[in-house]
Amino acid sequence: MITHSVIRPSWFIQISGGYVFFFALYGLAVYMAGRMFPKQMLGFPLTDIGIFGTAVVILLAFRSNTAYNRFWEARIAWGDLVNHSRNFGSQVVQYIRPPSANGARAEDTAPVHRELIYRHLAFVNALRLQLRGQNDWKDLDPFLDKEEITTLTQFANRATQLNHRQSARLRELHEAGWIAERAYVEGLMDTVKHFYIAQGVSERIKGTPFPNQYSFFTRVFVWVFVLILPFGLIQHLGWTSVPLYTVLATIYIIIEHLGCRTEDPFEGRIEDVPIHAICRTIEIDLRQQLGETEVPEPLRPENGVLL
Amino acid sequence: MITHSVIRPSWFIQISGGYVFFFALYGLAVYMAGRMFPKQMLGFPLTDIGIFGTAVVILLAFRSNTAYNRFWEARIAWGDLVNHSRNFGSQVVQYIRPPSANGARAEDTAPVHRELIYRHLAFVNALRLQLRGQNDWKDLDPFLDKEEITTLTQFANRATQLNHRQSARLRELHEAGWIAERAYVEGLMDTVKHFYIAQGVSERIKGTPFPNQYSFFTRVFVWVFVLILPFGLIQHLGWTSVPLYTVLATIYIIIEHLGCRTEDPFEGRIEDVPIHAICRTIEIDLRQQLGETEVPEPLRPENGVLL
Amino acid sequence: MITHSVIRPSWFIQISGGYVFFFALYGLAVYMAGRMFPKQMLGFPLTDIGIFGTAVVILLAFRSNTAYNRFWEARIAWGDLVNHSRNFGSQVVQYIRPPSANGARAEDTAPVHRELIYRHLAFVNALRLQLRGQNDWKDLDPFLDKEEITTLTQFANRATQLNHRQSARLRELHEAGWIAERAYVEGLMDTVKHFYIAQGVSERIKGTPFPNQYSFFTRVFVWVFVLILPFGLIQHLGWTSVPLYTVLATIYIIIEHLGCRTEDPFEGRIEDVPIHAICRTIEIDLRQQLGETEVPEPLRPENGVLL
Amino acid sequence: MITHSVIRPSWFIQISGGYVFFFALYGLAVYMAGRMFPKQMLGFPLTDIGIFGTAVVILLAFRSNTAYNRFWEARIAWGDLVNHSRNFGSQVVQYIRPPSANGARAEDTAPVHRELIYRHLAFVNALRLQLRGQNDWKDLDPFLDKEEITTLTQFANRATQLNHRQSARLRELHEAGWIAERAYVEGLMDTVKHFYIAQGVSERIKGTPFPNQYSFFTRVFVWVFVLILPFGLIQHLGWTSVPLYTVLATIYIIIEHLGCRTEDPFEGRIEDVPIHAICRTIEIDLRQQLGETEVPEPLRPENGVLL
Amino acid sequence: MITHSVIRPSWFIQISGGYVFFFALYGLAVYMAGRMFPKQMLGFPLTDIGIFGTAVVILLAFRSNTAYNRFWEARIAWGDLVNHSRNFGSQVVQYIRPPSANGARAEDTAPVHRELIYRHLAFVNALRLQLRGQNDWKDLDPFLDKEEITTLTQFANRATQLNHRQSARLRELHEAGWIAERAYVEGLMDTVKHFYIAQGVSERIKGTPFPNQYSFFTRVFVWVFVLILPFGLIQHLGWTSVPLYTVLATIYIIIEHLGCRTEDPFEGRIEDVPIHAICRTIEIDLRQQLGETEVPEPLRPENGVLL
Repeated sequence: MITHSVIRPSWFIQISGGYVFFFALYGLAVYMAGRMFPKQMLGFPLTDIGIFGTAVVILLAFRSNTAYNRFWEARIAWGDLVNHSRNFGSQVVQYIRPPSANGARAEDTAPVHRELIYRHLAFVNALRLQLRGQNDWKDLDPFLDKEEITTLTQFANRATQLNHRQSARLRELHEAGWIAERAYVEGLMDTVKHFYIAQGVSERIKGTPFPNQYSFFTRVFVWVFVLILPFGLIQHLGWTSVPLYTVLATIYIIIEHLGCRTEDPFEGRIEDVPIHAICRTIEIDLRQQLGETEVPEPLRPENGVLL
Repeated sequence: MITHSVIRPSWFIQISGGYVFFFALYGLAVYMAGRMFPKQMLGFPLTDIGIFGTAVVILLAFRSNTAYNRFWEARIAWGDLVNHSRNFGSQVVQYIRPPSANGARAEDTAPVHRELIYRHLAFVNALRLQLRGQNDWKDLDPFLDKEEITTLTQFANRATQLNHRQSARLRELHEAGWIAERAYVEGLMDTVKHFYIAQGVSERIKGTPFPNQYSFFTRVFVWVFVLILPFGLIQHLGWTSVPLYTVLATIYIIIEHLGCRTEDPFEGRIEDVPIHAICRTIEIDLRQQLGETEVPEPLRPENGVLL
Repeated sequence: MITHSVIRPSWFIQISGGYVFFFALYGLAVYMAGRMFPKQMLGFPLTDIGIFGTAVVILLAFRSNTAYNRFWEARIAWGDLVNHSRNFGSQVVQYIRPPSANGARAEDTAPVHRELIYRHLAFVNALRLQLRGQNDWKDLDPFLDKEEITTLTQFANRATQLNHRQSARLRELHEAGWIAERAYVEGLMDTVKHFYIAQGVSERIKGTPFPNQYSFFTRVFVWVFVLILPFGLIQHLGWTSVPLYTVLATIYIIIEHLGCRTEDPFEGRIEDVPIHAICRTIEIDLRQQLGETEVPEPLRPENGVLL
Repeated sequence: MITHSVIRPSWFIQISGGYVFFFALYGLAVYMAGRMFPKQMLGFPLTDIGIFGTAVVILLAFRSNTAYNRFWEARIAWGDLVNHSRNFGSQVVQYIRPPSANGARAEDTAPVHRELIYRHLAFVNALRLQLRGQNDWKDLDPFLDKEEITTLTQFANRATQLNHRQSARLRELHEAGWIAERAYVEGLMDTVKHFYIAQGVSERIKGTPFPNQYSFFTRVFVWVFVLILPFGLIQHLGWTSVPLYTVLATIYIIIEHLGCRTEDPFEGRIEDVPIHAICRTIEIDLRQQLGETEVPEPLRPENGVLL
Repeated sequence: MITHSVIRPSWFIQISGGYVFFFALYGLAVYMAGRMFPKQMLGFPLTDIGIFGTAVVILLAFRSNTAYNRFWEARIAWGDLVNHSRNFGSQVVQYIRPPSANGARAEDTAPVHRELIYRHLAFVNALRLQLRGQNDWKDLDPFLDKEEITTLTQFANRATQLNHRQSARLRELHEAGWIAERAYVEGLMDTVKHFYIAQGVSERIKGTPFPNQYSFFTRVFVWVFVLILPFGLIQHLGWTSVPLYTVLATIYIIIEHLGCRTEDPFEGRIEDVPIHAICRTIEIDLRQQLGETEVPEPLRPENGVLL
């Protein structure tokens, strides 16, 4: 997520794909050609181009709208993950107690709470790694014991299996009398369901991009428009048509690019949903719910970007 | 679902319906006629055409938006199916245990878990076959025993009856003391309800297309526009009007076609929601939740298309 | 719901309201007048008309969008009715058993299941009749006994009271020990709530049309546009303006009409949500869940229309 | 809610604010001035005005869309109130029974059911009065006893406190053994929560209008457009520009007005959500659920308006 | 939230950023230059500018729409907070009772109810302070005892920990026999979950602004348009182009600014969601539910603004 309100030149190059130089040259070439050949041969009536310009913008508006909605849906899924994680923190700490007969002591209880909440932090970070296609599995080391990490590597979808393992651990605790049945079924297992849902929504957005048939033809339409645009401008404008064209073409192309870049929010790009920062927020809040006093710092934007 | 970001020529033919050749000829014919007859007889003022072009694009934007929403709603239904299937996996494995008095052994438990989860995989695949109108019922063979398959054939809607059979099996297990009441009613039967819902949403999108009255008249409007468009262009442009017209008409028609093709996402076409791949994802995750180590591979895109 | 992809001439007349003939005559009249009087007296500049044409189309797009959303919301309500009906089928069959002490026999159980599911089918069909304003109350005869039908006639809203009666019957069964408390309160009564909701959503769409203030002024705007349009065309076009005008005016008017017709989906018109067919689907599935083997056929489209 | 499909002249005056006369005079004045001064001094090029006309319409479409969504969200809240009221009717009648030890008699039960349902009717009507800012508190007299009405007057938000009182009464009944715990907590108290929600949604729409910054500048934009429009028309049109201008300006202003009037649906205006009629619907259905045979008539539209 | 329907001059300066003066001067400068140089050198054809004007407006409509949706989503989250707070009020008062064996007395019960509801009021106000980035932590003093306030200061997210503390207190009460298990798990803890959700939604909107890449390039596009606009106007208009340009440019810039200001609704600006007033509403209703008679006044708008 870009946190700096002004787009920096390096991002500009990245987002625009450097086409600004191409447009400057192309506009200049059309302008020169327009001075050599008679107007009727080269010029297009602007009205035509106006029609197609409007059509292109309407398609880009549809595209931008969809891209933002996908971004926002991804953000909502991770927001839900935050909400249910905090709720899970309260549930774990309040619902899970040693069987009363045993004479519950804080020393017995704390490691169990810690284990469950740390496994949840492992789940959240595993989901982050899977979505971004990263392999920094050592990020999970602080949250799981060695053995569990080893077992994990054999599974196709580690986040799913961590959540599944969590549900198994909850059952063991329930059977051992640590969790009352109601709190187990309607409290904790319901929260586990919400974790599956947040995971599934993220994977859906990751795995099903905006239909390629639409993005391809929108891109073609934009490029056709941008390439015929200078033939319309040279009829009416002098040399000022070159810088004007460069600015306009760049803006159209950038809006198209923004759609492509924003609609896939888990690619590790500067426009991503900042899921690493969200993982950290969850970690801080849950560890403070456990009563820990030494918690890591929130992630800060680096160079105006928060990942 | 098209996974290749560039549309291949063969898809282009399929999507455009081959009208590109027709437009080239038609544009040429109008251009030739325009050279033989006086302009006033044939030419239309471009402003008119601009008005109708804008109108057409606004209708196409409405169309595209609706088509994408239908596609996405279908994808969400299948995403929910994934989420609740994973949750079902955890529920089955954790909630269903032999009655404690019996001295539960893993050997007793595993076949029961396996039966339920395999029946669910049969349900998911039966829903896929029904939606796509395919008859490969042998795809269910690995998941059900012979007898159950035979019984199934007599039902109008096999997916419904498989889910219904699942609910009957759960009751038997509950009555035999394998499932506590709360886990039965509020856990497993609630998940069964979500399977009915995901099925119902898919069938609704399949069975109720975008209203034909709208799609028909939008198509007529687009065609009227595309057929009068060259009469506007020939007034201002020379022979370049022919390729320009061909490109523009093709783009308009393609956007209309994309709406038609994307809005019905269960037809076995290249633009479909990839429900076969989703079935496989569910199968892999659930079988790993059962502890199986030999699971099938995920479906890969073939020739840039994932079904 | 129109199932035929091509609009037939008779539907065309019905949808267009026959205005196509009026537009042909009106266009001809304006064309004739344009030849008799000087252009300046009669002609409008097309740019003006373009502005208003765009304005009209944007309003029509808003209108179409809202109409489709209302149609789709109605379809979703009936889809939810399908989903919860199937779930109700499973709940009734699995949850409702004779008190164990009695020695439950299938002969005792089946009539109870049948009664409840048939009453639900009566509810679904009563809702259909009420929404469409039909009086074919004999359609309920197969589902209810005589006495219940007689009682029903005194109520303002029969669907509400059928569902209420269902809840009373469930309580009796619960009190007689046929339904465990959890399955009663959180299973069956929760489903009864969903039936109230699906009914309420349908009645809301039926009872609160798209605000008349909007539909009236949109219609006025479209007509003003359509009536001044030929004065713009005659300036530039010859006799071809007459057929062109006729086509264009008809398209605008039809889009306006489609909004009016689609946004009220319970009027028994060809564009309706096919609630009769949905009632039949529910009937087939639920009767097969009961184990009945002789079930009615699904409703087929008649003359390309499914009601 | 306007139930008459044609807008009557008196509504037209009310909605248009009578500006139609102003526009006629203003258009005439500009036309006269245009004949006295040279065109170049007064006339604007229509293309400019076209651009701004399109801009204005796009903003008005956004405005209309938002207004309709607010209206519809309010209608949905009241639809939910209907649904949960009917469900409450069934819950009260089925769940609330004298403790079995006492030998339950219908004579004991009926007054309790009646009291609860009548208090709910009081809640619904109190919410209506508060939303519309009316003081007809005597409308609650048939539903509450004297003492409760007196107590009520001291509260800031009477609907909230009526619902709160309802929850207190339910607890008393639960403690007295009239309601089983499950039906109390998960049935009736859940419905009470939905009443709080429907109330809260209505109050949110009432208390937070469409942001004034947007409505103010949209209005300014529309007026600027409408006031410069005649300077564009007089260049091209003769005296016909005066009636044409009057019609067009009136339509633009009316669309702006409709947004303002529709987006606040609890003002007691003709465009309101008909909450009085909905209160009556609830009353009829719930009293029939109680078994009462003498129920009031549904509210009928008066002069084409239903409140 | 601006409650005054007319935007005051001081707000106008604030919203427009004072650019109105700049546009007046810039428009004058271009007009003067246009009189000194030949038209062809400086003037742009208006058609071009029309195309870009339409494009700009479509992007601004997308922007405005998104901004309003974000504002409204924030308002809904706080509306849900109101609804669940009222419900929490009823739950606390009805569900929490001294263990019956003790002989419950109102004197024992009232302080417990008061403590829980006051802590909730502290949570609501802490959330408000955090969202607005204010440090008036003394606002919580009336609701918490000294010790709890001191403990609170060590946490990163005080609202989370207050809600977590609430859940701990509820457990203590449950363990002490003051709350039945069902009311505890499915009543009160469910409401605690909804508080986490309302908090999380607010923080999501606060922490994830409308993507900067979109807002930046939209702003650039608007400015490019506004700066070339006068070159189009001077071709056709005389000195009237200067005031006309000033008005139009200001309107475009203001619409852009409104998007930026409305889409971040927790900044303590005049366009904010009035969360302080909502906190007060919650306080009044909940304290009246507790039976308190002396409650604070609702917040009134100051100078036409409600915060």
